[in-house]
Amino acid sequence: MPTSLGAIVEALGGVLSGSTETQVTRLASLSNAQKGDLSFIAQARYAAQLSTTHASALVVPPSLQELAAARGACIVTDDPYLYFARLTQWWAALHNAPAQPEIHPTAQIHPDAQLASGVDIGPFAVVEAGASLASGCRVGAHTVVGRRAVIGANTLLYPRVVVGERCTIGERCIVHAGVVIGADGFGFAPSNRTWVKIEQLGAVRIGNDVEIGANTCIDRGALEDTVIEDGVKLDNLIQIGHNVRVGAHTAMAGCVGVAGSADIGAHCTVGGGAIVLGHLKLADGVNVSAASVVTRSIARPGLYTGMFPIDDNAAWEKNAASLKQLNRLRERLKAVEQAIAQATEPRKTP
Amino acid sequence: MPTSLGAIVEALGGVLSGSTETQVTRLASLSNAQKGDLSFIAQARYAAQLSTTHASALVVPPSLQELAAARGACIVTDDPYLYFARLTQWWAALHNAPAQPEIHPTAQIHPDAQLASGVDIGPFAVVEAGASLASGCRVGAHTVVGRRAVIGANTLLYPRVVVGERCTIGERCIVHAGVVIGADGFGFAPSNRTWVKIEQLGAVRIGNDVEIGANTCIDRGALEDTVIEDGVKLDNLIQIGHNVRVGAHTAMAGCVGVAGSADIGAHCTVGGGAIVLGHLKLADGVNVSAASVVTRSIARPGLYTGMFPIDDNAAWEKNAASLKQLNRLRERLKAVEQAIAQATEPRKTP
Amino acid sequence: MPTSLGAIVEALGGVLSGSTETQVTRLASLSNAQKGDLSFIAQARYAAQLSTTHASALVVPPSLQELAAARGACIVTDDPYLYFARLTQWWAALHNAPAQPEIHPTAQIHPDAQLASGVDIGPFAVVEAGASLASGCRVGAHTVVGRRAVIGANTLLYPRVVVGERCTIGERCIVHAGVVIGADGFGFAPSNRTWVKIEQLGAVRIGNDVEIGANTCIDRGALEDTVIEDGVKLDNLIQIGHNVRVGAHTAMAGCVGVAGSADIGAHCTVGGGAIVLGHLKLADGVNVSAASVVTRSIARPGLYTGMFPIDDNAAWEKNAASLKQLNRLRERLKAVEQAIAQATEPRKTP
Repeated sequence: MPTSLGAIVEALGGVLSGSTETQVTRLASLSNAQKGDLSFIAQARYAAQLSTTHASALVVPPSLQELAAARGACIVTDDPYLYFARLTQWWAALHNAPAQPEIHPTAQIHPDAQLASGVDIGPFAVVEAGASLASGCRVGAHTVVGRRAVIGANTLLYPRVVVGERCTIGERCIVHAGVVIGADGFGFAPSNRTWVKIEQLGAVRIGNDVEIGANTCIDRGALEDTVIEDGVKLDNLIQIGHNVRVGAHTAMAGCVGVAGSADIGAHCTVGGGAIVLGHLKLADGVNVSAASVVTRSIARPGLYTGMFPIDDNAAWEKNAASLKQLNRLRERLKAVEQAIAQATEPRKTP
Repeated sequence: MPTSLGAIVEALGGVLSGSTETQVTRLASLSNAQKGDLSFIAQARYAAQLSTTHASALVVPPSLQELAAARGACIVTDDPYLYFARLTQWWAALHNAPAQPEIHPTAQIHPDAQLASGVDIGPFAVVEAGASLASGCRVGAHTVVGRRAVIGANTLLYPRVVVGERCTIGERCIVHAGVVIGADGFGFAPSNRTWVKIEQLGAVRIGNDVEIGANTCIDRGALEDTVIEDGVKLDNLIQIGHNVRVGAHTAMAGCVGVAGSADIGAHCTVGGGAIVLGHLKLADGVNVSAASVVTRSIARPGLYTGMFPIDDNAAWEKNAASLKQLNRLRERLKAVEQAIAQATEPRKTP
Repeated sequence: MPTSLGAIVEALGGVLSGSTETQVTRLASLSNAQKGDLSFIAQARYAAQLSTTHASALVVPPSLQELAAARGACIVTDDPYLYFARLTQWWAALHNAPAQPEIHPTAQIHPDAQLASGVDIGPFAVVEAGASLASGCRVGAHTVVGRRAVIGANTLLYPRVVVGERCTIGERCIVHAGVVIGADGFGFAPSNRTWVKIEQLGAVRIGNDVEIGANTCIDRGALEDTVIEDGVKLDNLIQIGHNVRVGAHTAMAGCVGVAGSADIGAHCTVGGGAIVLGHLKLADGVNVSAASVVTRSIARPGLYTGMFPIDDNAAWEKNAASLKQLNRLRERLKAVEQAIAQATEPRKTP
């Protein structure tokens, strides 16, 4: 379904250089774009790709307007990356008009559940007693909304999500397949060399505009709730322990693990595979690099890293062996320094 | 539903200081407790919080009895944390009386499956031919119990669990949503630069009183079984490879990976995100810190760690760069030591 | 069901030493084998186990033929491990004859889906509009095949798999329970300290003979597709970000995370828990050790490692503390070297 540049600019703004009638059939990356495609250049430093891309039209920053216009149609905007993000949303809405909402006849909806108007529920979904779904919610196939759970307006639960008893999700959230919200937190008291379960009596509270990636788990709190604030973005296969707080607009990449009762500030980022230990506090604006382990609270915004640098295996083996003697090396260095100090001292004051 | 301290002490023991008629309406943490709440102080070193908490009643150790009694009602017991664990269980049983067991009409139960009395099966669950569910089992919505699988008495499978063919689970286990028990182990023989699948003919055997967290995977053995012994506690998103043994009462935090044929002793703990390589043996009582990589067998109990310390990124970059030359630094230090030894030797024996 | 060695050799080749009538009832590992079992010895260096195993028959390399034949029946073949892999396949086919394919009456198949002959679909599976299943496909219970998704011939989707809209899977693939193919990639543009979603318009394309482990996630591309080439083997709980390419016959162990747009060559291996950062290129034949973090492109085949060596915790603490001063130590060493150079220089040229 071709779309004109005029329609795009009318919907999303930006200054068009070229004909409003120019048609584009696909959004594409610079390097893969073909004739008929619309692509974008986020920053002036990628200007060299202007001459190699086959895209028929480009979204560019003002600094590239002249060069881009010389080669063909372009839309000029201050933040092409953001423009392109909005364009993907507009494009998806245009090309994937959502079906009329329906309650699939195979879905099991408890008579005590409350469903607002315009709710869409897929095959084999289960909505338990006392659960509440606000208007515009979409519940995918096989998704289970537990007793007294609350789902906010226009939230999308993909197929095969579990929302546990009493957990709440805000508005306009997106929860991908396989997510488990509200499994028990990992809490046990030791007794006679065995573990006695601490029932997890809290729940999970998720704000508005949160996105949660596939197979990610957010545990319910032990006594109080686990809290995910507005605008948080979690990638796939993330583990959020009980009683964690994730502050507003914090983003975490895949495979991150956050242990119980960690308190993570707003506007943080956590790189893929990083681990945050329990009962720590991260200030707002902390950025943790991929695969780093946060073992202490961090009070100041900034970028923090702890990761063994990769090397060819033979070099790594030698350095790792030396690392196991590093403290001893430090002592030996100190001894050498003292020997030199002693040796040189008499000369100074003969 | 308020509960009297008298009823609690009658059920769980402990010495009550204050009126048996005192009512509590909620269990809460010290810092969040409000009037009407019951909280606990695990150890004398938290005594300062006695004066700041708003809890109406406290569970305390004998050493805090006097201070706690001075501020209000308290239950005195040797191990408040354990007492509180049992209290959460009692509380949950009191407030969440389980529904009458039923076989949901949408569940697909193969006529050759064996169901004991008092089994509860949720909507859309599938129980295949030859599977056996002992009395008091609960099988959640969408859970699949494969052919000839065996589930012990009073075990709870949450929604959306898969128990593969021939796998067995003991009594009183709790298996959270999304768990996959008995997927194929990862076994391939190389041939002409491709991989030839080794069919995984074993199964998974899980003991009694095991808890398995959401989206955790336990693979079936290649020839013999993967074994999880009694009382093991696994958190979410853990990977247990084929033919692993996890010894009794061992606990693992989230995101741990255990490679094939690792043999982990009893009463071990493995911190979040740690990796245990394959074909290793860990003695009983080994504790592995979070995010550490076990690359060799460990024969003695104790705490083991291997983790790059986190730092601000600029400091990390410098230290990581130096680390890649560490073995060279060690050689340079040795050369310096020799130079000093040579320089000082003549003075000793002039 | 006992099987004769003659039947095995007839099916799989190899030179039998002993009676074709010898019956074996089980395949077993050397150390667990009992009377009646068939086991294998992959390499001559395990020859000592010849005298301790209780197996009734063995698959051995030519170098062990004499020793093995002296103790009982054996099958001689150049690559016993590969032979045993094929034997497990033959054995599984013999003992687990697949049921007649059927479309379970509870499955929801959209009238616009295309199903070839011999397709098997389990209870509560969902096949959406425009999806296409080639002949011999098996779709497990609760599995969802999204709109316009394509599944190749003889591919097996275990229960509870999600294949998203427009994603394609080749022939003879095996996809284990809980896998999510085609969830949205993790893409957001920052705006006013919040995140604006980039709709993920690409899909996932998976080649032939690919195996994907339980609860693994492969995200759809942002604009173009995420690509998994022929013969790739992925273990459990792996995260593959959007627009990643995984080259043919590459294998990854459990808990690996691959960030967006990483381009991984053919015939690579990635150890368990390793992380590959985004927008990197790994050449063909690169082997990454477990738990290592790939932070830069790797242009040459070989083994690469970066992992803090595990140690007892006290030793680790000292070495980790020194590590945080490593760059300073290096500077101190340099100063010492200079001091020595100065001290020794005057003697040379007095």
